[in-house]
Amino acid sequence: MNIAVVGGHKCSKEIYKIAEEVGNLIAKQGWVLVCGGGPGVMEAACKGAKKQGGVTVGILPSSDGREANKYLDVKIPTGLGYARNILVVRAADAIIAIDGEYGTLSEIAFAFNEEKPIVGIDTWEVTGIKQVKNPQEAINCIKGKVKNAE
Amino acid sequence: MNIAVVGGHKCSKEIYKIAEEVGNLIAKQGWVLVCGGGPGVMEAACKGAKKQGGVTVGILPSSDGREANKYLDVKIPTGLGYARNILVVRAADAIIAIDGEYGTLSEIAFAFNEEKPIVGIDTWEVTGIKQVKNPQEAINCIKGKVKNAE
Amino acid sequence: MNIAVVGGHKCSKEIYKIAEEVGNLIAKQGWVLVCGGGPGVMEAACKGAKKQGGVTVGILPSSDGREANKYLDVKIPTGLGYARNILVVRAADAIIAIDGEYGTLSEIAFAFNEEKPIVGIDTWEVTGIKQVKNPQEAINCIKGKVKNAE
Amino acid sequence: MNIAVVGGHKCSKEIYKIAEEVGNLIAKQGWVLVCGGGPGVMEAACKGAKKQGGVTVGILPSSDGREANKYLDVKIPTGLGYARNILVVRAADAIIAIDGEYGTLSEIAFAFNEEKPIVGIDTWEVTGIKQVKNPQEAINCIKGKVKNAE
Repeated sequence: MNIAVVGGHKCSKEIYKIAEEVGNLIAKQGWVLVCGGGPGVMEAACKGAKKQGGVTVGILPSSDGREANKYLDVKIPTGLGYARNILVVRAADAIIAIDGEYGTLSEIAFAFNEEKPIVGIDTWEVTGIKQVKNPQEAINCIKGKVKNAE
Repeated sequence: MNIAVVGGHKCSKEIYKIAEEVGNLIAKQGWVLVCGGGPGVMEAACKGAKKQGGVTVGILPSSDGREANKYLDVKIPTGLGYARNILVVRAADAIIAIDGEYGTLSEIAFAFNEEKPIVGIDTWEVTGIKQVKNPQEAINCIKGKVKNAE
Repeated sequence: MNIAVVGGHKCSKEIYKIAEEVGNLIAKQGWVLVCGGGPGVMEAACKGAKKQGGVTVGILPSSDGREANKYLDVKIPTGLGYARNILVVRAADAIIAIDGEYGTLSEIAFAFNEEKPIVGIDTWEVTGIKQVKNPQEAINCIKGKVKNAE
Repeated sequence: MNIAVVGGHKCSKEIYKIAEEVGNLIAKQGWVLVCGGGPGVMEAACKGAKKQGGVTVGILPSSDGREANKYLDVKIPTGLGYARNILVVRAADAIIAIDGEYGTLSEIAFAFNEEKPIVGIDTWEVTGIKQVKNPQEAINCIKGKVKNAE
């Protein structure tokens, strides 16, 4: 199962820690971590997943992958710019949104368009999004939403 | 100049009227109306533009254009589903968001990502969006935001 | 009905003349001309269509449309680079390929993938493509292939 | 480094064996195998790579990944249909084309558009493509074409 972590290119130390913990728990479940492949929240989640021996995938906006963080097992440069956001959502069975700017908002909106389960931590307050308080709660919430989460 | 009107597949009679007036004013300016090509707000805007002799373009989610409203001069079926939303935004010099659901929210978010001027009428309250009260104000606002609006 | 003309950014004077004639005949049929929006064969076809009062649409690789030729009624900047080639094909009910380089080859291949009627003039010799000798024959061929061509 | 293997959904036993060997050699080099994720040549290459303990990635046409072969470590459903072909090419540092139909032809054409190194085995005879006789020669050829192949 693929879980996308979406969030900003920049974040506070507190958010970085949260994202790292989220990545760690995703890997612990045996899930593949998919993200936009960049710095900030994406990097933190990948770092956390790698600490746990997980698999990390970055779907990158550039065509040469120059913005890739260093914790990616698989880099998918797309040359699509922000249009790659929808690919991050489509590649995922569920999405965890953490903090973030307009890019994250577009991913939250697409998650609803594509009817994908989504939970948020300290992120955009969008009608319908389930906000949780910590990484473990996010994981539990996804387990409840995705049938046969494996 | 291309102006995108984004909004929901379904809308109230009041919103339909507003969208029709927006389309009408866009055509009056000599601007090309770009939209997602479907019913609801999109149809209303196209109807208004055609009454004024304007040009209407629909960038459609399906690959056969079956969801096209009947006021389109140019139909662009894409087969991309909701991923076509970003194309609507990229094709536009400025965006007017009216009412709408999650698809509209994704287009608002993309407008910020792509740094396109955007104004809203009765739409999602997103940080940074300029909300106006009526169609004429939307047009005036765009004239102020786009350099050399022609 | 939309007809795509695909071909290279550069072409000989002879090819330019042929493409111009193709565009002219497309407009004469009342069909909308869709293309990649650039110079060369695309420009020639648009020029021919405009002489006949037709409608021309350019689906452009850049996000600002800087490469647009001057005979376009509707410009659709995509920011997708060569990935926009598939949109040209998907937007069309049938495709006429004239001369061209690898970009044109990708469009011919996509036409077969997407099961769109395609005819060629002096273009890549691909298994299954119908090659015709002149613009009028291309138009006749398309009329034969597309049901209810209007 | 990512190497894409492109080829048809269906293939002969001989081609299947060749593709399997290609995948095996890609994994032996420590390269990541990227492909369209489906059956035929794609499945064979993935099977070969997994035998060698390699990493396999499938960029899939559907939005639910139902067509995925069983040798994929990472599934990227896109919902883009054949438009995902360009993503396979963009994700790769070099491409090996084996046999194949029009989809493969589109990928060969895109490889030239995007200026990616490409070698072919028993595939479309396109101007400029380097055809090699066996899997090992394909690997050697790629090593020669990609700077700092690691």
